[in-house]
Amino acid sequence: MKKPYIQDVTLRDGMHPIGHQYTKEQVKELAIALDRAGVDAIEIAHGDGLAGGSFTFGFGAQTDWEWLEGISEELTHARLTTLILPGIATMEDLEKAKNMGVESVRIATHCTEADTAIQHIQGAKKLGMDVGGFLMMAHMNSPKNLAEQAKIMEQAGADCVYVTDSAGALLMNDVKDRIEAFKEILEPSTEIGIHCHHNLSLGVANTIIAMQHGATRLDASLTGMGAGAGNAPLEVLIAVLNKMEVSHNCDLYKLMDTAEDIVRPLQKRPVRVDRETLSLGYAGVYSSFLLHSERAAQKYGLDTRAILEELARRGMVGGQEDMIVDVALDMIK
Amino acid sequence: MKKPYIQDVTLRDGMHPIGHQYTKEQVKELAIALDRAGVDAIEIAHGDGLAGGSFTFGFGAQTDWEWLEGISEELTHARLTTLILPGIATMEDLEKAKNMGVESVRIATHCTEADTAIQHIQGAKKLGMDVGGFLMMAHMNSPKNLAEQAKIMEQAGADCVYVTDSAGALLMNDVKDRIEAFKEILEPSTEIGIHCHHNLSLGVANTIIAMQHGATRLDASLTGMGAGAGNAPLEVLIAVLNKMEVSHNCDLYKLMDTAEDIVRPLQKRPVRVDRETLSLGYAGVYSSFLLHSERAAQKYGLDTRAILEELARRGMVGGQEDMIVDVALDMIK
Repeated sequence: MKKPYIQDVTLRDGMHPIGHQYTKEQVKELAIALDRAGVDAIEIAHGDGLAGGSFTFGFGAQTDWEWLEGISEELTHARLTTLILPGIATMEDLEKAKNMGVESVRIATHCTEADTAIQHIQGAKKLGMDVGGFLMMAHMNSPKNLAEQAKIMEQAGADCVYVTDSAGALLMNDVKDRIEAFKEILEPSTEIGIHCHHNLSLGVANTIIAMQHGATRLDASLTGMGAGAGNAPLEVLIAVLNKMEVSHNCDLYKLMDTAEDIVRPLQKRPVRVDRETLSLGYAGVYSSFLLHSERAAQKYGLDTRAILEELARRGMVGGQEDMIVDVALDMIK
Repeated sequence: MKKPYIQDVTLRDGMHPIGHQYTKEQVKELAIALDRAGVDAIEIAHGDGLAGGSFTFGFGAQTDWEWLEGISEELTHARLTTLILPGIATMEDLEKAKNMGVESVRIATHCTEADTAIQHIQGAKKLGMDVGGFLMMAHMNSPKNLAEQAKIMEQAGADCVYVTDSAGALLMNDVKDRIEAFKEILEPSTEIGIHCHHNLSLGVANTIIAMQHGATRLDASLTGMGAGAGNAPLEVLIAVLNKMEVSHNCDLYKLMDTAEDIVRPLQKRPVRVDRETLSLGYAGVYSSFLLHSERAAQKYGLDTRAILEELARRGMVGGQEDMIVDVALDMIK
């Protein structure tokens, strides 16, 4: 088995649970700790990618440039990476990041919109970067159709394409089916990545299943620090890989100590599977739906979870939050 | 697929994280809520089984009899169950429980000591009870040898035999191998059960894998309330079963609400995967080793985790805590 490539997302997806409020100093401290603990790649950006800081997504405590500044010089081993959503970050943003030492980028789109990533993937390749295609909310597309989206990203030049379970809604067999579909359609030289969320408490299990079926790039974060119920917890994933005798570059004890001594104390509210995050993963909807659904539930005497499930049935995606009240009104009819 | 039988252990294994301090009223409230939410069986006892309240294991806020009193009359659907460890509880204790409406019991032994359960299994069957054989620390025995232990319990009369992953140390394939070994050696009429802990955050995944390979009795607890990193969280397990379209008797929303509104507020410290509980699952040792190992680590300048791993290598079991200092002294030699 190829040695898995471990990408930490504590400093990107992990921005969400603290409202993008890491200080510059915290980011540097964690990046150095992660590097010394042997992770292969460290992703740094606003939770919604470069230039995500805005009224819509929330402003960060610092700009992306402040977070990224002076990091690459500190890394002895890990590759510095970032993430962009086409339509939010521009190619100029990416070039600026490249000039600050960012060697790798993921271009993230909804799981049916790979074509919106083509220009950015091509642009990033022209900059000489390692490029990942990041197909978010992967449970909202069938294995076959998701693989076709992955093919679009591969053909645009992506070095790796990800099954991105943003809502933590995929079951173990769902992951297996998607990885298998990717393998069937992608060139053997294209890597397959997996990014899990823990809403159904399957984050580690799904990452392992993906690896066993061919994924070579594995995302995780310390204590699971990430949106919703969090990501696959990195230190737990490494413990499991050790027990499986899978070779990797990480030091388990260092990761455990960084997780417990630095990351967990930063959590304003615990990153865990609870009623709210389980509801999101069970319905399989964007976490941005939660607050609006809670308000509509209270106003119209409905159960928040029933609204979330109805939104899922209607296939609603991020940006449609203003329609949640209409859905609630339909439901009480 | 046979409809899984869901046994809640919030009121037995869930005693551990609060030092067996549920009040009588809390037990009754939870038992009623679990019953109304449709679980098939509710286990009530001190965390170490009937008569576990002692200097060794810690005294409960109430006696087992106080916890059990008046419960069976309240249940409309669920079977009232309990657990005993031979050597701690006596057959008189079990008979007393039977007379209080307990219909089912698990006889729990270390995974290599099924023979110590024979008399108690036979005795419980004579009382007309449903009987489970509970092979604890199942990762410390090979699939084949564990299955032979299960066979001993079956031959003594057990209706069901459990793979009990007390330390949360089993990986998904380890669970599969043990369930398969059980199926090979047990009569088709003997049920197979699974009891997971979440120390490697695989509690739900392992329970599902076990079910997919033939386990029909599944243990879980609300919010995972249980020893170490807790059990498979019941409400999450049910959400996953729903998504898999596996039929069962539980109401997901009621379980979620009971978990969040009643059980989580009782936790004095969070039941979760953290440095301490991950260390226990990674090493695969009794949780009673933790405190002694921490003390020895501090005294002799060692890493607690290294001591736990050494205890695991030596195959040490519960009751050998007084030897931990000797092990630490060996390590610094």
